Amino acid sequence: MNSSRTVGLADVAREAGVSLATASRALNSAYGVAAATRERVTEVARRLEYVASPEASRLATGATRSVALVVPHLDRWYFGEMVGGLEEVLREAGHDVLLYHVGDPEGRHAFFERLPARRKVDAVVVVAVPVTDHERRRLELMGVTIVAAGGQDATYPYVSIDDAAAVRQATDHLLRLGHRRIAMITAVDPDRADQPVHRGRTRGFYAAMAHAGVPVDEELVVTTDWGGVPAAEAMEKLLSVRELPTAVLAHSDEMALGAMRTIRRAGLRVPEDISVIGIDDHPLAELVDLTTVRQPVRDQGLQTARLLLALLRGEDPDPAQRLPTRVVVRRSTAPVRDAPAGPAAETPAH
Amino acid sequence: MNSSRTVGLADVAREAGVSLATASRALNSAYGVAAATRERVTEVARRLEYVASPEASRLATGATRSVALVVPHLDRWYFGEMVGGLEEVLREAGHDVLLYHVGDPEGRHAFFERLPARRKVDAVVVVAVPVTDHERRRLELMGVTIVAAGGQDATYPYVSIDDAAAVRQATDHLLRLGHRRIAMITAVDPDRADQPVHRGRTRGFYAAMAHAGVPVDEELVVTTDWGGVPAAEAMEKLLSVRELPTAVLAHSDEMALGAMRTIRRAGLRVPEDISVIGIDDHPLAELVDLTTVRQPVRDQGLQTARLLLALLRGEDPDPAQRLPTRVVVRRSTAPVRDAPAGPAAETPAH
Repeated sequence: MNSSRTVGLADVAREAGVSLATASRALNSAYGVAAATRERVTEVARRLEYVASPEASRLATGATRSVALVVPHLDRWYFGEMVGGLEEVLREAGHDVLLYHVGDPEGRHAFFERLPARRKVDAVVVVAVPVTDHERRRLELMGVTIVAAGGQDATYPYVSIDDAAAVRQATDHLLRLGHRRIAMITAVDPDRADQPVHRGRTRGFYAAMAHAGVPVDEELVVTTDWGGVPAAEAMEKLLSVRELPTAVLAHSDEMALGAMRTIRRAGLRVPEDISVIGIDDHPLAELVDLTTVRQPVRDQGLQTARLLLALLRGEDPDPAQRLPTRVVVRRSTAPVRDAPAGPAAETPAH
Repeated sequence: MNSSRTVGLADVAREAGVSLATASRALNSAYGVAAATRERVTEVARRLEYVASPEASRLATGATRSVALVVPHLDRWYFGEMVGGLEEVLREAGHDVLLYHVGDPEGRHAFFERLPARRKVDAVVVVAVPVTDHERRRLELMGVTIVAAGGQDATYPYVSIDDAAAVRQATDHLLRLGHRRIAMITAVDPDRADQPVHRGRTRGFYAAMAHAGVPVDEELVVTTDWGGVPAAEAMEKLLSVRELPTAVLAHSDEMALGAMRTIRRAGLRVPEDISVIGIDDHPLAELVDLTTVRQPVRDQGLQTARLLLALLRGEDPDPAQRLPTRVVVRRSTAPVRDAPAGPAAETPAH
């Protein structure tokens, strides 16, 4: 090769027979590249005397020591707690933490169009943001390490909970209390109504009901925008069904509170008339006696940061980490009336 | 114009026929300026050979263009919302936002000892952190611009609410409902038990009661650590007083929810037996029907960032900005039983 011309990453990629993104990932020790591929790309780069751009060199020597957190909703406790965990570990390791709030479409656009050109971070943590294909390509052009905190897809190395398991735990709790007419309020992201926020959560419900041999009444599954007020309205729909549910499972604690408000305003009691269970263990759930499935949010932040640091050190950590959830029993759930509590599959109401 | 004299922003503004603030905004391409105005100001600046101040120049050349946010509790909605507002305005103005969580004593220490040596930011925003004298000296050694968001003291230019006014509004609401035996749950920061979190809030209560000519029963003023569970315990103390209060004012909505849990568990009803009012308008207050005094948290963040940008541009903005609060009436407060509702000073119970 003509050494008077600068060897670029594209040359390395072509010679190694991989895509630009893969070459970049291989050389930046991000994950998602098979060891053999990484070795081949590294060997080609060495042979071609590929020198990373000044920016890339800066990254390699750790000159930036900065990590970007991409967060969609700073005003929700979940994201604050997650960011708190991330910040603690990253700061302790000597990294600066740059905050990118991408809540509205403009913020998203600005981030994904501009950041890649600026190359001022070693890594990006996407905090429970569903990333589109276009955004994914932009991120990959940066050639930096990317991880996901609390994410619902497995594009990047991630730490999250098992959403299906969480909802299974909630459903089993209600089944054990003797409930059979169980309603579910399912959340969609208003900005992306095409897909449920928590696909796994919906799946977990159907799986648990099927396992217990209890049919799902589709009239009792209501899909709504994420949030307490939409859930309050969803509950109105559920109260308009002729045969009321005896229990309601909401996809988040905020949504459970919305459902409880509607139940209360309709002159019914929680849990005497209708049991309610949420998902999350919101900081206020304890104060309103809400039964829920606790997810360790701060721990997901801490653990994601550790995963990222391991990747930056060139280690090979588990790229798909799930933290456990558990039911927290409070006073918003109770045995179904006129039916004994007991193992779900054994004792249908009689 | 005498070219030996430095042309200032004021000269540009005068020549362009706009205010100082508009001239500054136009040249910094922040928001809020019509395109035509921006063009005119830019043209005048060019003609006068206006050179921005060293600080502005440094900003313009992008030497750091970074702002540090110092935040004590990322896991509370208040701080997340505040940070969201700050981030939006700073990012839009082209600044990077560095996040420093100083929740625990080590974090605080690390921040105040290390950051000043690193000089990587143009400015520091302290978000509702009470700053000690030592920390204040450290901050000042940095020689950067410092502002406070939601702060309770006036050491730095700040944007906050008027705490005394907020509690006066809450107290007046209860007095108008005919309440006289009004209890208050006062918050202290567990890390700094020597001083109330909200000195102004306590003052506002006494002032409102005095103004209405209603004596404060000191047995009904309980001081506790900040938070819902401590407030739930404080409410137990209030339920141990022989003559119960008919209304409770808590220093935050979280604390109000804690009080409500205790009242409910004691077999009493809110608001029939005891009215409860909080301060904040927490995102969940609406869902639990809590009457409260709303403070605009995100707006404080937005406004503090604008204040900071104005200072960085060498302008002279109002350094003590208070945003208004207002009562949000929901279902946790009601007229006192056996006493007519009415203007406080006119109709004592009869």
